[in-house]
Amino acid sequence: MDFKPVKNVKFVEGGVCAAKGFRANGIQCGLAHKPLTDTDAANDAANNALPKKKNDLALIVADTECTAAAVYTTNKVKGAPILVTKEHLKNGKARAVIVNSVNANTCNADGVEKANMMCELAAKELGIAPEDVIVASTGVIGQVLPIEPIANGMKSLAEGLTYDGNPRALEAIMTTDTRKKEIAVQFEMGGKTCTMGGMLKGSGMIHPNMATTLTFITTDAAISEELVQRALSDVVKVTLNRASVDGDTSTNDMVCVMASGSAGNKPVTKEDEEFEKFQNALYAIMMNLARMMARDGEGATKLIECAVTGAETEKIAETVAKSVICSSLFKAAMFGEDANWGRILCAVGYADADFDINKVDVKIGSEKGVIDVCKNGAGVDFSEDKAKEILGEEVIEIIISIGAGPGSAVAWGCDLTYDYVKINGDYRS
Amino acid sequence: MDFKPVKNVKFVEGGVCAAKGFRANGIQCGLAHKPLTDTDAANDAANNALPKKKNDLALIVADTECTAAAVYTTNKVKGAPILVTKEHLKNGKARAVIVNSVNANTCNADGVEKANMMCELAAKELGIAPEDVIVASTGVIGQVLPIEPIANGMKSLAEGLTYDGNPRALEAIMTTDTRKKEIAVQFEMGGKTCTMGGMLKGSGMIHPNMATTLTFITTDAAISEELVQRALSDVVKVTLNRASVDGDTSTNDMVCVMASGSAGNKPVTKEDEEFEKFQNALYAIMMNLARMMARDGEGATKLIECAVTGAETEKIAETVAKSVICSSLFKAAMFGEDANWGRILCAVGYADADFDINKVDVKIGSEKGVIDVCKNGAGVDFSEDKAKEILGEEVIEIIISIGAGPGSAVAWGCDLTYDYVKINGDYRS
Repeated sequence: MDFKPVKNVKFVEGGVCAAKGFRANGIQCGLAHKPLTDTDAANDAANNALPKKKNDLALIVADTECTAAAVYTTNKVKGAPILVTKEHLKNGKARAVIVNSVNANTCNADGVEKANMMCELAAKELGIAPEDVIVASTGVIGQVLPIEPIANGMKSLAEGLTYDGNPRALEAIMTTDTRKKEIAVQFEMGGKTCTMGGMLKGSGMIHPNMATTLTFITTDAAISEELVQRALSDVVKVTLNRASVDGDTSTNDMVCVMASGSAGNKPVTKEDEEFEKFQNALYAIMMNLARMMARDGEGATKLIECAVTGAETEKIAETVAKSVICSSLFKAAMFGEDANWGRILCAVGYADADFDINKVDVKIGSEKGVIDVCKNGAGVDFSEDKAKEILGEEVIEIIISIGAGPGSAVAWGCDLTYDYVKINGDYRS
Repeated sequence: MDFKPVKNVKFVEGGVCAAKGFRANGIQCGLAHKPLTDTDAANDAANNALPKKKNDLALIVADTECTAAAVYTTNKVKGAPILVTKEHLKNGKARAVIVNSVNANTCNADGVEKANMMCELAAKELGIAPEDVIVASTGVIGQVLPIEPIANGMKSLAEGLTYDGNPRALEAIMTTDTRKKEIAVQFEMGGKTCTMGGMLKGSGMIHPNMATTLTFITTDAAISEELVQRALSDVVKVTLNRASVDGDTSTNDMVCVMASGSAGNKPVTKEDEEFEKFQNALYAIMMNLARMMARDGEGATKLIECAVTGAETEKIAETVAKSVICSSLFKAAMFGEDANWGRILCAVGYADADFDINKVDVKIGSEKGVIDVCKNGAGVDFSEDKAKEILGEEVIEIIISIGAGPGSAVAWGCDLTYDYVKINGDYRS
């Protein structure tokens, strides 16, 4: 699946190390619930699965202090690392990210203490302040996080930091992910070439639990604390917040951005054209990560992109697009490559928004073409053969027009497959 | 799975014919999309599946005019039969129900015309007014309903009406249903013994499409038009509206009640004790039908009953209970019989309601016992063996206490299985 182009940005190689002055590393410190054997590794290799014996602890470090911002899950159950990161980002500054997989450090009495210890261990090794460390965890919730493997591994983790260490860090945050999700772009700001890169994990755990998303983005562009937060808060609304694998909002979701300013552009301090360029680059990164996440949804075989236009407001368009990509019936039909437009219209119809269903048109499309399946709320004749050909592709577009105004929105989802049930029905250990 | 007892009502045999003076019948008029062969029938028998070659048209008739009420889907896409039934029930009176499966008569230009024709055909055969007929359809949407099979079959359908015809009518409304869902109760009102019975279809289609629910309830109790509607509108909120198989709201959902008054009780005309008795009986019927529907959810192997207590309001309790039974991650865990309480707490946490997550307790239970898995928002030690034993049962209870007030609610759902995906991923024809 290719990246989706965005104007004024160029895709380049890499991820969180693409921007100038960011080092990363990932190691296997040994957080697995039970010792992994060589047999496990051989089985994983034979099944072409992500090895269980894999990195589980990552560090990302900027050469200089960064302005930084984050957005967090809206779940009332919040992982301890989120509480600590929120505190550390109050001043809008950060230098490093420490993150582990396997254990979410959530719903444990000593969670905050452990999250603070992770920051302190990293800070000590790097010679920076613990308050400059962002901490994140993903994995099983409600199991006490063993700090020893992290403490024991921190020295080698820090010593192994390199300017091309992003693949090792990426492996450390992956869980049931079957694809590596990283991206980098270059763009011009204030006459300087800036670079921005990011990596994302989603969704699930090796011992599957949460549809957790963690996203880390780094850039060498210069931007104020206030505006990096504003850019992130705006862009997340139209990217990751419009992607759904199964409608479950995890307890540990976090997206953070660190901006070092090493590119030498005049720092963005107001919502001007330069800010728009920054936001555009962030959109290119996060929109493509959202697509990759949906495509790699647990058990998914297809990315579903639902574009709604002609709504009275953007909010209505968003509500309708999300309603479609969240419908289990529709998602199962996509897995079956069944042009069952009735399910699309049904999901449009129960979306909690005000519009005239009798003005709704629906098209389905892919690289193989686009066909009308519904006009003015009623079915139209179409070739089932052509529909089958279109739905055989990996990226499917559902194009809905509401005929009421200028509002539009895109949402991303995936099909619902046997493997989703298999992955999530398995026992925790 | 047994009926769940309700005070002051006694379960009796039967369904829509249990109350005095109600006849029913069901026939195969031939609405199937393609001719069914004896090979199909043999295959169905071999697979222990509901035969595709089955009844597809049903009629329920009261000997005398009834007060009647209905509630309908909130989907903006409404099947044509719903529009016609709404019109016919404006005066709160009805004598008969005509209903077909296979084709939903929805999103067709001639839908209302066809629904009216169904009423006229039935009325003519029964010698009653078309306005006294309730009409319903369930099946594939967006395909023109062929009226000929219905017209041709109406005479024999009416001629075959009997006071014990409920099994034939029930078969006619079933689609992917694997269990027959009917129930009847007796209760005292004004010194008379009244009977109430009902049948429900849900969920899916032989050519699977909508998670459609149709429910028909008959009683010989006497109650005014206004109060039968009030009773139904109240009871549906705490029964069928708290059951979810997959979160999709169909276009053709309808629940209707017909009350003939043949039991001879003094008609209920105000919200007194007698009204409460009527409502209690209706609750016993609809609560048990809701449980049966959830248990028979597409591909389900278990009924999940989530009871929330201690909420500030009933609304909050309902929101939390529904959030849990709708979580795909939780549902897949139940299929895997995995006591993954983190997923329960996660779904509690993202419920759109205000409460303190740190006061939430969670228990899981079944006929094999009840165990605590979470107290004050954090995990507690429990025996995985005991949990496995509890979750091995067919009916699973999730008991959540919020610790904030008197509000409580129960919601019903089912596990998410391979078969759900299989049933709904299949091609329409």
